[in-house]
Amino acid sequence: VSAAQSAVTVYGLMDLGLVHESGGPGGSALKMESGVTAGSRLGFKGNEDLGGGLSAHFQIESGIAADVGGLNQGGLMYGRQAYVGLKGSFGTINLGRQYNPLTNILGTIDPFGEGHEGAATNIVGYASRMNNTIYYTSPSFGGMTADVAYGLGETPGNSSANRQLGLALTYVGGPIYASVLHHRINDATGNNPNKITLIGGTYNFGFATGALSYNVNKDNAGIDSNDTLVGVTIPFGASAVMASYIRHNDKSPLNRDADQFAVGYTYNLSKRTMLYGSYGSINNKNGATFTVGNAIEAGTGDRGLAIGVAHRF
Amino acid sequence: VSAAQSAVTVYGLMDLGLVHESGGPGGSALKMESGVTAGSRLGFKGNEDLGGGLSAHFQIESGIAADVGGLNQGGLMYGRQAYVGLKGSFGTINLGRQYNPLTNILGTIDPFGEGHEGAATNIVGYASRMNNTIYYTSPSFGGMTADVAYGLGETPGNSSANRQLGLALTYVGGPIYASVLHHRINDATGNNPNKITLIGGTYNFGFATGALSYNVNKDNAGIDSNDTLVGVTIPFGASAVMASYIRHNDKSPLNRDADQFAVGYTYNLSKRTMLYGSYGSINNKNGATFTVGNAIEAGTGDRGLAIGVAHRF
Amino acid sequence: VSAAQSAVTVYGLMDLGLVHESGGPGGSALKMESGVTAGSRLGFKGNEDLGGGLSAHFQIESGIAADVGGLNQGGLMYGRQAYVGLKGSFGTINLGRQYNPLTNILGTIDPFGEGHEGAATNIVGYASRMNNTIYYTSPSFGGMTADVAYGLGETPGNSSANRQLGLALTYVGGPIYASVLHHRINDATGNNPNKITLIGGTYNFGFATGALSYNVNKDNAGIDSNDTLVGVTIPFGASAVMASYIRHNDKSPLNRDADQFAVGYTYNLSKRTMLYGSYGSINNKNGATFTVGNAIEAGTGDRGLAIGVAHRF
Repeated sequence: VSAAQSAVTVYGLMDLGLVHESGGPGGSALKMESGVTAGSRLGFKGNEDLGGGLSAHFQIESGIAADVGGLNQGGLMYGRQAYVGLKGSFGTINLGRQYNPLTNILGTIDPFGEGHEGAATNIVGYASRMNNTIYYTSPSFGGMTADVAYGLGETPGNSSANRQLGLALTYVGGPIYASVLHHRINDATGNNPNKITLIGGTYNFGFATGALSYNVNKDNAGIDSNDTLVGVTIPFGASAVMASYIRHNDKSPLNRDADQFAVGYTYNLSKRTMLYGSYGSINNKNGATFTVGNAIEAGTGDRGLAIGVAHRF
Repeated sequence: VSAAQSAVTVYGLMDLGLVHESGGPGGSALKMESGVTAGSRLGFKGNEDLGGGLSAHFQIESGIAADVGGLNQGGLMYGRQAYVGLKGSFGTINLGRQYNPLTNILGTIDPFGEGHEGAATNIVGYASRMNNTIYYTSPSFGGMTADVAYGLGETPGNSSANRQLGLALTYVGGPIYASVLHHRINDATGNNPNKITLIGGTYNFGFATGALSYNVNKDNAGIDSNDTLVGVTIPFGASAVMASYIRHNDKSPLNRDADQFAVGYTYNLSKRTMLYGSYGSINNKNGATFTVGNAIEAGTGDRGLAIGVAHRF
Repeated sequence: VSAAQSAVTVYGLMDLGLVHESGGPGGSALKMESGVTAGSRLGFKGNEDLGGGLSAHFQIESGIAADVGGLNQGGLMYGRQAYVGLKGSFGTINLGRQYNPLTNILGTIDPFGEGHEGAATNIVGYASRMNNTIYYTSPSFGGMTADVAYGLGETPGNSSANRQLGLALTYVGGPIYASVLHHRINDATGNNPNKITLIGGTYNFGFATGALSYNVNKDNAGIDSNDTLVGVTIPFGASAVMASYIRHNDKSPLNRDADQFAVGYTYNLSKRTMLYGSYGSINNKNGATFTVGNAIEAGTGDRGLAIGVAHRF
């Protein structure tokens, strides 16, 4: 039973839902999943004031596969986040395993917050986190901040192999959130970067928040594509309804385009506990293989329906 | 160093003992084991009042193999328990990895609480926990409660494959604890369930508590067997003595019967810390292969002797 | 968010640094490492007063590979420490996975505390921890304490196989810390122990602390060697400078001698947070293969340079 001494906050989230996946090659399945709206987790964090405007902080977060008693993030114990950092008038600098800028920014734009059966990440992007990373965030200048994330490749004799770099410029002010970012991940030879460039944002109209983003991708094989997201969140009382449409435009000769349409609903039992439901559907063209997943599971088919409960602590 | 903010209780148990196993094919061994009387563990749990008689709760529990610095439950990080739930006038409903009803009920009947070198689970039953499980417990009606546990099989295209269902009816009142339960686990084709039906209970005579249970089993191959347990717990001051006899009656032509006899002793240094000792012996007939284990280890032979210390926090 | 009930202290350390390794077969590499000065960790510990001078305690510690979100100690979840114990007028007795006496004592003598790019463990000794261990520490008699650590081999039919035993006698008084220890680890047949015998200590001159140790080794194959360490720590204000020289003398016909020289610097931003830098270099002779590592990483080459930040909580 925990003591009251000083500096560690123990926190987390338990999200368990029933998900019906259909349209996959193996047939339909009803599953219990841990982390439909956001990954179930147990975390530890703290902050120390060092004086003179300087402070130190840390965060350690483990992903919980509560359906089976295991770990998310491919079995990594501290797979969600694990970093230490310093904050001062120069900004914030963190060292360790961290979210990349795309995840932070797309997660803010996406009405589903990269979760539910409508996660933007079903269509857009790549791995959410970076290892061996130095992440710098500037102070806010009139609402504008810059992010620079540099992930070491750690390959002996080839410092550019597997190296990655993310850059973002974000404005927050009044009803507006807007961001432009570029991210690139070198391959194992140090060349042929997988690149993504995104511009997007949200606008709070009061009765609803609209979301819009556009990104262009070039993968390691040099294949071009782009994605367009349009979304909306409508809060009313303790409830909210979300919807989004994402169009993937494959510019290669294979022309493997896809569309995702999703709707969701949340009902807050309290500030910490909510019930939720969502439905997502993907239309894959010319053999595209996108699947409807959520915050944790990649999904197995082109349709997904989820209901569940999420409890923060 | 932990903070005093609100809602998480950190708790656990460290049980380390010296166990002498004998009668096994490889010869005798003296071992240090983590979880003789009950599995060593670190847990996190909490509760939130949602108003109107409704509350939310969660529990996350990791099994500690403190002898070697690893994990129990086959290496699962949160292998003991991981669930979220809601409680109201309708009862309690939990989602996640949980104990099955048999473990909850047999653990209450067994004088050794499914631990020590006399654990009833050396002879009776199967895996203690269920994945992907919806567990409903009714309110108490005059001391009577009902449990329904449903574990999803999650097999695409075959919803009955690997599915399991547990049902129990339990009465608690005055000196009496009594329960009847049925549990069945389908095989990978969705048929040939492994079934167990148990009736049992305890009666507190004041100077001692008597325990009695009887269960019939039918395994996936259709082989019948039954088990009878008779046990007693005698407390005196800070000490207690426990003893049990279990008879396994194999109804197949192989007639692989077995008997287990065990005695144990506990001495409470405080409400949280105890010293313990126990001895168990199994008489295997016609090639039966039961082994004397405890709360965590399956054991290697037909005799086991343990002494140790268990400290709750 | 953690509660204020009683008995568990949550604590830890996050140490992340940039390490440049050179002189290895694969070429140079710049890496982010988790645990340069001391392993990054998350721990839980507590103490219970049992009355009459007796108390119970426990400690559970997980090593964090924060650079990649995983675990140190070869993937063991509770790989740093996991034990329960009792303390009384008789001394302290702990059961579980624990540091061996060599790690405890050499870590006190070594100016680098077995961390930084000058860890004495780059040259001296073996695995830091013992499984299945009963560790007894005597009360202090005029500053003198004795340690006995016994690790069970747990091999059926051969109780001496893989068994280990550590013995130490340590004096602490005024400016003096001095210790003599012997440790032996049997091989899988129960014979040919790997043995180490060490004498060493530190003396606090006020402006600086000097360190000196000498140990003789005999490995499982019967090969003799010895190591000599000379070191110094010079504190000034919030800073400290450390340096050490270690000479490994291989007495086998191969004569694979080696020398390590290392310097380090620490600057305390607070009692809990420090910046650090260190450099170590090894001169391997006749094909010796020692590498410059630190508290966690073994290193890949004969030179290492590190800078970073360590934050305790």
